[in-house]
Amino acid sequence: MPVVTFQPSEKSIEAAAGSSLLECARLADVSIDAPCGGKGTCGKCMVRILAGSVDSQSLGALSQELVADGYVLACKTKILHDDVTVETPQRTGWDGGKFVESLEEECLIRRELLPDKWEFDPLAVKWMIEVPPAGLEDGLSDFDRFTRAIQHDWGQYDVACSINVLRGLADTLRIDNGRVTVSLVREGSRIHVLRVEPSDGTVRNYGIAVDIGTTTVAVQLVSLEVGKIIVTHSDYNGQIACGLDVISRINYARQPERREELRVRVLKTINGLIKKATGAHDVLPSEICNAVISGNTTMLHLLLGLNPEYIRLDPYTPTIMKSLYLPASEVGIEINPDSRVCLSPCVGSYVGGDITAGLLCTDLATDSPDVNLFIDIGTNGEIVVGNCDFLMACACSAGPAFEGGGIDCGMRAALGAIERVEVDPATGVCRKWTVGDTKPLGICGSGMIALLADLFLAGWIDSAGKLNRDKPSPAIEFSGRSAFYIVATAEESGTGKALRISESDIENIIRTKAAIYSACALMLKQVGMTFNDLTCIYIAGGFGRFLDLDKATVLGLIPDLPRDKFKYIGNSSLMGSYMTLVSRDYYQRQIELANRMTYIELSSDPAYMDQYTAALFLPHTDPYLFPTVHAAMK
Amino acid sequence: MPVVTFQPSEKSIEAAAGSSLLECARLADVSIDAPCGGKGTCGKCMVRILAGSVDSQSLGALSQELVADGYVLACKTKILHDDVTVETPQRTGWDGGKFVESLEEECLIRRELLPDKWEFDPLAVKWMIEVPPAGLEDGLSDFDRFTRAIQHDWGQYDVACSINVLRGLADTLRIDNGRVTVSLVREGSRIHVLRVEPSDGTVRNYGIAVDIGTTTVAVQLVSLEVGKIIVTHSDYNGQIACGLDVISRINYARQPERREELRVRVLKTINGLIKKATGAHDVLPSEICNAVISGNTTMLHLLLGLNPEYIRLDPYTPTIMKSLYLPASEVGIEINPDSRVCLSPCVGSYVGGDITAGLLCTDLATDSPDVNLFIDIGTNGEIVVGNCDFLMACACSAGPAFEGGGIDCGMRAALGAIERVEVDPATGVCRKWTVGDTKPLGICGSGMIALLADLFLAGWIDSAGKLNRDKPSPAIEFSGRSAFYIVATAEESGTGKALRISESDIENIIRTKAAIYSACALMLKQVGMTFNDLTCIYIAGGFGRFLDLDKATVLGLIPDLPRDKFKYIGNSSLMGSYMTLVSRDYYQRQIELANRMTYIELSSDPAYMDQYTAALFLPHTDPYLFPTVHAAMK
Repeated sequence: MPVVTFQPSEKSIEAAAGSSLLECARLADVSIDAPCGGKGTCGKCMVRILAGSVDSQSLGALSQELVADGYVLACKTKILHDDVTVETPQRTGWDGGKFVESLEEECLIRRELLPDKWEFDPLAVKWMIEVPPAGLEDGLSDFDRFTRAIQHDWGQYDVACSINVLRGLADTLRIDNGRVTVSLVREGSRIHVLRVEPSDGTVRNYGIAVDIGTTTVAVQLVSLEVGKIIVTHSDYNGQIACGLDVISRINYARQPERREELRVRVLKTINGLIKKATGAHDVLPSEICNAVISGNTTMLHLLLGLNPEYIRLDPYTPTIMKSLYLPASEVGIEINPDSRVCLSPCVGSYVGGDITAGLLCTDLATDSPDVNLFIDIGTNGEIVVGNCDFLMACACSAGPAFEGGGIDCGMRAALGAIERVEVDPATGVCRKWTVGDTKPLGICGSGMIALLADLFLAGWIDSAGKLNRDKPSPAIEFSGRSAFYIVATAEESGTGKALRISESDIENIIRTKAAIYSACALMLKQVGMTFNDLTCIYIAGGFGRFLDLDKATVLGLIPDLPRDKFKYIGNSSLMGSYMTLVSRDYYQRQIELANRMTYIELSSDPAYMDQYTAALFLPHTDPYLFPTVHAAMK
Repeated sequence: MPVVTFQPSEKSIEAAAGSSLLECARLADVSIDAPCGGKGTCGKCMVRILAGSVDSQSLGALSQELVADGYVLACKTKILHDDVTVETPQRTGWDGGKFVESLEEECLIRRELLPDKWEFDPLAVKWMIEVPPAGLEDGLSDFDRFTRAIQHDWGQYDVACSINVLRGLADTLRIDNGRVTVSLVREGSRIHVLRVEPSDGTVRNYGIAVDIGTTTVAVQLVSLEVGKIIVTHSDYNGQIACGLDVISRINYARQPERREELRVRVLKTINGLIKKATGAHDVLPSEICNAVISGNTTMLHLLLGLNPEYIRLDPYTPTIMKSLYLPASEVGIEINPDSRVCLSPCVGSYVGGDITAGLLCTDLATDSPDVNLFIDIGTNGEIVVGNCDFLMACACSAGPAFEGGGIDCGMRAALGAIERVEVDPATGVCRKWTVGDTKPLGICGSGMIALLADLFLAGWIDSAGKLNRDKPSPAIEFSGRSAFYIVATAEESGTGKALRISESDIENIIRTKAAIYSACALMLKQVGMTFNDLTCIYIAGGFGRFLDLDKATVLGLIPDLPRDKFKYIGNSSLMGSYMTLVSRDYYQRQIELANRMTYIELSSDPAYMDQYTAALFLPHTDPYLFPTVHAAMK
């Protein structure tokens, strides 16, 4: 079979003649974006043939210039019997992005925001019981005596367990004279026994909190004995090769075998992170007796292998939204197979469990009458406004720009990511700080925001995001009609190549911020409010350790309000998962939140397009909305 | 690797040098009995080496004569690098025994005894619902609307389903405008949805009733739409190769990998029977949404892969006895993977779910004050005495003689089995009738009872079961110190070889009947009663279509009472499974029966041995116990 080699990753794969380059790339785990699902219409899967001949059936909207240079659409190009070498657009973020444990946690978690008022009362408990020995005439089985011992301590629950637990019960009861430690979860009037160990094993009780983002997946290993976070790891979602955003994934998932592929891909990411976390801390996966997983509605559907098609189609109906409590073995999470996996409840097609989890980190989950706004900026943007009396939620398609997606040298907040930038207004050259103080490998969301805000205020880019051709700077390069801003030269950069921001990268950022800002504005309008009515604005997202709110205001990503009204809360989906994991109170609160939230479909409101278009400038077309920014520009 | 060939079955297998012949036989699926579990102490695994050299490490108690003839103990003999040919004792029953559908059902089921008063109300129901279409602003998922439609018809149950069912839900709801048929079971306050089909699929609703005997397994395919038995099939339990009785199996199951082997073996038998039943009647295994399985405590433990060791060890404690309701996929039964498998509740180590199921076919399960006795004669004998106020149960180790086990030409009540016999008192030659009117292949329990009773009454065998050496008959043959009764000559027989009953076969029958009779007698004594206090005696077992009660009394298998007090009820475990399958009322009744039954451990009563020894004669050492038999002898 012919061999297809992808550059620059040098990944190669054997494939049957007639396979499309897009299929080959997926098999080789090389990410090529194809939001249209391979129909040849979006043009995003453009790749360049370096060697070998191929059969290109459609060139879509590719320019003659590009075609002459060897560019084709991967989805519409089939391999023949030749070996082929293909160049794919390089994305530092997807392929690079190593993480350092200590930094990783700082990037994901705002420990100071974890509420300290939760009562430590995890869903999964370890408990030592003493089961009396078997008697000749008592007519009781091992399970009968075991059940009674549990009921003696916990009350009249039904006690249930899997065959797997039953298999070891008889021997385990006899190792230490009936002293056993039971891992259990309570579900209504029933106690599920997940594991039985001899003697006192209560010290080693672990759980995991998981956030499945469209772009990144984070897993946190937690000691349920004391609620301590042992370690947090994250990685790119293995589904990225099948589409960068939710809609591409849904398109990709049309056939059942592709749904299965997506399911396996995200499980591989999650299970890999679990293995990494447990391996380094001497924990066995079988000692993990509970998992709480949050993610957007599509991610949770794909995790379960559900057909996400109807999420995308009017009237946008998910298969399921309620909180689920499923056996790990059924879900495919590689921890104790009998343990429960709790999936956070969703509220609508585009407001998922990541939001109901995230809200647990805010006052929107409390009985405060103050109206607050919650903005989660990920590949999708989700917005919730409300207080103890009402909660309304909506979503907008933001795109992964702030997580490094769609930006040439973009990457997430990981080792080597430029996370802070200061531009010299005289020269246009920037100083930068990276995660881990290493040579820069790329730029993450917070760095990008700071960079663009500085460039805009100093006049290097205009309101439309175009680089100023009349103001020469050693940091700005032109190539034909294109212009680039050099964040790091080839010498400075850790990749050996200059890190450049193109005008199309800037456009991506502007589209993303416009989607979020306009959604917030429209949402408030629909409830008859303005930004000024808000007590607090919570901003969640994967911006890393820092998010410069002044600079985010300059871009028009967030409204121009007193800075003390904002709270940056990091990966609140992961933190909310953690809170549910260690507290039944938060678990209940999340279900209540989901039940009382009203979901608004923004795409059905014709006013959305107007709001969006008006926001496609820095900071906005309406200067009165951003008075302090306009004052600073003068 | 050397090849081991077994005769007469001609099965052969490649095995590593150093493997024991017993292991080789199991791998080749050749049954060799080894009740001691391969310790070399019981001597039952004796085989004869016909060709090749072997390493025999212990000859146990084998006589020099046998050793000179090439006999060895299979468990203590290892193969070397040579190919070996081994002769194993031939057991018609295990290897032969084909079944004819129509006869099979007659042999297993006494349809006339199935109570007609049960309310048809199966555990698993199929129900058509109409789910309204998704709305844009209703905030409901597919599962929400689906749940409400079920609750509309069934009331406020919690509705749960597996991921598997969820996966198909969205598409299925959209095939016929929300008209779907739901397969469901009710469990407490919860409805489990097992399957969702488009449109009206209520007609095709199937269940299976299963009886797992130590020797034979029976599976019945039932239409749950109307409760009709579609077909009944049975086969030998695939575990027979690992031991003939419960104790041998428990010994065999010591290592976890052997427990797994036993589990897989019985599943293979059950799943094979399901395949046969469904295949011939155009039913898909996925259309079967419920299974009720009854079996003795050990069989149910082995089905689940539980360690049965503690059933055998004082104080004889099973891991679990209560009724279980488990997903088919977890148990390994190949029907709809989400459907529930209901395991009948057990009462003690040796009174299992086959008995609680069997009692459903008797008045012991009703509120009658009459005291009745229930005797289930299988490889183990189980006895229950009681009425609406009390129920006591005990068990005895009967052995598989009445099912063809341990009898040279024994077989179960299947095609070709001699089921009725009449001996000419003048010549000692017998007339015989076979199942299916074919040439005889062996003799089943009912035939054996009739034969021995006639021979005894006419004086061809004495009270101790010895053939009369002073009364020549063309049907009796002598060979050295051994004597044989010829049931069928080589010409008459369907196997080409004469069917002979040895004195050791007769001894086996006497031991079996003594075990059962003495257990009944002791049991009654313990409750302060005699046989005369009984209103009815129910006899269950695999005797086929006929059990001649007069002749069973002659042998002393059952007490000498007016014949109208007896009811032969066939395979009551299978019938009870059927009744539970089609009626929730019987399901509840079975659980109540199990709860109110007191289990007595006979082996702990020193009087048992006395009773047993006294019963080791035909009909009994005490003539006053069998007055009508003694009258007939004169």
